[in-house]
Formats: sequence, structure tokens, C-alpha cells
Amino acid sequence: MVMTDDRNSPQDEQFDLHTYLAEGKTLVEAALDRALPVIYPERIYDAMRYSLLAGGKRLRPILCLTTCEMVGGTREMALPTACALEMVHTMSLIHDDLPSMDNDDYRRGKLTNHKVFGDDVAILAGDGLLAYAFEHIAVETQDVPPANILKVVARLGRAVGAAGLVGGQIVDLESEGKPDIPLDTLQFIHTHKTAALLEASVVSGALLAGASTTEIEDLSRYAYQIGLAFQIVDDILDVTASSEVLGKTAGKDAKMQKATYPSLWGLEESKRQAQLAIADAISALQSFGEAARPLVEIAEFIIRRQY
Amino acid sequence: MVMTDDRNSPQDEQFDLHTYLAEGKTLVEAALDRALPVIYPERIYDAMRYSLLAGGKRLRPILCLTTCEMVGGTREMALPTACALEMVHTMSLIHDDLPSMDNDDYRRGKLTNHKVFGDDVAILAGDGLLAYAFEHIAVETQDVPPANILKVVARLGRAVGAAGLVGGQIVDLESEGKPDIPLDTLQFIHTHKTAALLEASVVSGALLAGASTTEIEDLSRYAYQIGLAFQIVDDILDVTASSEVLGKTAGKDAKMQKATYPSLWGLEESKRQAQLAIADAISALQSFGEAARPLVEIAEFIIRRQY
Repeated sequence: MVMTDDRNSPQDEQFDLHTYLAEGKTLVEAALDRALPVIYPERIYDAMRYSLLAGGKRLRPILCLTTCEMVGGTREMALPTACALEMVHTMSLIHDDLPSMDNDDYRRGKLTNHKVFGDDVAILAGDGLLAYAFEHIAVETQDVPPANILKVVARLGRAVGAAGLVGGQIVDLESEGKPDIPLDTLQFIHTHKTAALLEASVVSGALLAGASTTEIEDLSRYAYQIGLAFQIVDDILDVTASSEVLGKTAGKDAKMQKATYPSLWGLEESKRQAQLAIADAISALQSFGEAARPLVEIAEFIIRRQY
Repeated sequence: MVMTDDRNSPQDEQFDLHTYLAEGKTLVEAALDRALPVIYPERIYDAMRYSLLAGGKRLRPILCLTTCEMVGGTREMALPTACALEMVHTMSLIHDDLPSMDNDDYRRGKLTNHKVFGDDVAILAGDGLLAYAFEHIAVETQDVPPANILKVVARLGRAVGAAGLVGGQIVDLESEGKPDIPLDTLQFIHTHKTAALLEASVVSGALLAGASTTEIEDLSRYAYQIGLAFQIVDDILDVTASSEVLGKTAGKDAKMQKATYPSLWGLEESKRQAQLAIADAISALQSFGEAARPLVEIAEFIIRRQY
């Protein structure tokens, strides 16, 4: 594993990723809870909150807070955008789980949104979260030049739409039942379904803090590589882990005849490729020095997470 | 019908609403076509364009262009937002037509999106249009202070989400099979399902041009009242017009046991209430003088449109 040169400075010893992620998660979950109070008509807010507050690592919002601080901003500046990223991510999960899409009954160990509220409400809950994400950024972001906030709106819109998540999901659906799709199609699916929103998360925090073009490019590369590694690891876990550990149905990819990295490369080569991606992600952070420590540790965490 | 005092000035004679709307529609449709070229993966862009370019009056974008000009801006300043309003409106139609929602096979005389592309693609096409709407405003709006653009993002997000369209649709779904729902529930449905996006359309153009708070309030009142009249007329037409004239299934409200204004008030009183709403809409425009002529004529057009 490649490491940056200055990782053995004294202050490193005090950095504990577990605590850092736990604190980030607590901060984000409190903000999400405040962002979406239940009012009339209660059913739609209940449905939106059911999935939004269903747990998860809150990795996307934490990445956003982290890069904002790293580039010289504050976590407060990035908190509305961090919440918006989780709203958008949740929307994509709710819609992906629908019977006409991936047809999943469980997510994070709980019944999926449509199993609890019905397909109609689940569709609307996703729509509501997506729309609210943009409203929340525009209304709640403080102490940031409006031009920078607009850049974030543009990036987030692009990450979710046909040039991002939605485009990746379409190709994913078209590839079902075709376990022998070419590597570049598989890469398209994942750079759009997974990496695009991770990139928006990493980049948006930095944009809010006024990062330079070079800094944004370095962070994009970092995000792309952790996104790739994240997806490879996800595919590996679908083969090797149990539903109980995953909190969702395991072995589903094979059952759906989905092409995955292990089906294309085998398990060992998949693990090696994930390691390479993480190494490159970390090397993309060199210009940030010690300030990038949380991002380095998050990258290492992704590769280590469960196997 | 209430009229503003200065409607008989010479220049009025030259204003022709039919031409004005036709020119607006041409401008908007060319911009929509340019805004969404077909690239890989083609299927999602085809699906988004199928509904986005399916015709319609383009009333929302035209209202946005109109108020921007009326308050001293240009149509160019408002064109990206105008397109975004139509994208959002189209998203709501695609999702509302789904089998798990209103289950409609025809819209504007054509097969609905999911009938052509499947439920999965239709859901994603809606998501893609919603996300792209915000991206399009943020990226394409020129010569407007970023703070004003952010106000538009906030208004549009609110108009679509649980505080707007989505909230109205939820209550609408909950009210199905209950033809005797109270008037305030019916009003909630329509102020959220119809009036919210009309209000965003009217107000956003003015916000881009830097309108004052008072001007925004007057325009909100105008929009609320034309939205109400629009819905009453829509309900009346569902009773009195044929599917051929409507371009969608007629008589559906009664079949679905939906409460409507005619079912609550009867036809004659519904027509009278629509007239009252239009009269108040027009009186809200008095401070704008002759510049409001297009808005006045649009209000009168709504009440006259088909019965």
C-alpha cells in the first residue's frame, strides 16, 4: 500500500479513523433529523425519513465535510450539502429497490421503502428527497459565495442524472441476464452508479471552500479510484459474505446473472485491482500533505472493510 | 371579468395572445431540444426526450419568460429556468402516469412513457429530468447574479418536493375512492399538485430579473389564482369533454371516485369560482400596468380554454 511521506508525524498518532467516522456520522444524522421534520401530509415525510434515517456509514456526507475542512473551510459550511448528498443517495436506493428495478425486499437489514409504504409512496419519497436536496443546499448553506454554491448544485445534478447515477442504472438494467458484458460496460456502470456520487461528495466540499482547479482534479482522481475500489469490494462481498453481514440479500448478483468484477476477473485479481485503485487514490492526495490524513485513512478503510 | 385600467391604450391593439404563445412555444421547444442531445446510453435520453418533446402548451416556461421580461430582464436570462420548469413538469407527469400511481396509458394523445419504455426506464427518465433541471439552471443561466439563481433553485426545489407537487400527489393518492373529502383537502391537493409549480414558474422569472418582495408577492397571488382556476377548469373538462379533445382519458376522475370541484360544487358553481379566481389573478397585476398585458391575457385564456 502506498503511503504519503508525512504519515509518521507525531500528530498522526492521535488520529483515530473509527472515532472520526463515528463523530461524522453523529453530526450528519443529527443534521438529517433536523432537516426533515414531519408535517402534513405525514405519510410522505414518514416515508422519506424511514429510508433517510435508516443508518448506513454516511460516507458521502463525511467525505464532503472532510474535503471542505481540508481545503480551509468549516464543517458548518458543508453540512447542508453533506445532508443533500445523503438525500440523493437515499433516493437512488429507494428507486433502485422498486419491484420494476432491482426488486429488493431488504436494505441495511430493514424492509425496503416500498415494502413498508407501497410502490407509489416510495416513488414519491424518492422524488421528494431529490428535490429537497437541491432546495436544502440553496436555502441552508451559510458563509459561502453563491457562485460556489451554484457549482455544487451543478455537480450534484450531473452526478444524479443521465450523466451519472441514472445513466449507470440504465446500463445496469440493460446488462441484466448478460453475465458476459465487456469490461468497459461494467466500468461505465460503476463509474456512473457509484463513482459519480462519491466524486460529487468529495469535490463539493472542496468547491464550497473555494478549492483551486488543480485541487479539484486531484480530488476527482481520488474519488474515482475509491469509487472503483468500493464497487469491486461490494462485488466481492456479494460472493463471499452472508446476507446477515451485508444487511441485504447476498448472492444476488449471481442469481440475477449480473456481470461483476469477480465474474470477469476472478476473486484474487479483483482484490488486486481494488488494492491498486486505493494506492492510486492515496497518491492523488500528495499535494495536500498531512491535512489529507482522514481521506487516506478512509481509502484504506474501504479496502479493508469486510474481507 | 375585472380588467386593469390601461388595457385600452393603443399598443394593446397590437398584442395577440395566440401569436405570443406560439412564439414562446417555438422558442422553448427549440431550447429543450438543444438542452438534451442523445448520447450514450441512448435509451435514457430517448425516454427523457420522448416525454419532454411531446408537445403541450409550454405554459410554465412561457410564464417564466414573461415575468422575467415584465420585471426588466430578458428572455435569454430566463430560458434555462424556463426549460427546467418544463423538465420538472414532465417528470411529474411521467411518474404520475405509472401503474402504481394514476396508471394512465395515454398523455397528450400519445402512449405514456412507461407504456413505451417500461416502468423501470420511466422512473429513471423522471429522475434524470428532475436532476437535470437543477443542473441546467446552475450551468446555463447567464447574466444573472448567482444569488438570484440560487433563489430560483430553492423555489423550484420547494415546488417539486413534499412541500409542493409530491405532497399534493400523496394526498391525492390517499383521497382516491373517497369522493366526499372535505374542500380543504381538495384545495391542498391542487395548491400543491398544480399551483405550486405554476407559482414557481411565475415567480422564478421575476426573481432572475431582481424583482422586489412586493412584486414577488403580487405574482404569487396571480399564480395561485390561475393555478386554482386551471384546476377547476381541468376538473370541469374531465366531465364535459371527450378523450379526443383532451388528449387523455376523459371521465377518469369519476371512474376513480376522485373528488373534484364539480363533484363538490356542481358544474355551474365551479365555473363561477374559476371566474372569480381569474378576476383576482388579474387584479393582483395592477401595479405592473401595461407590462402585465401578456399575464392578463394568459389568465383569461385559462378560463376560456375549452368550454
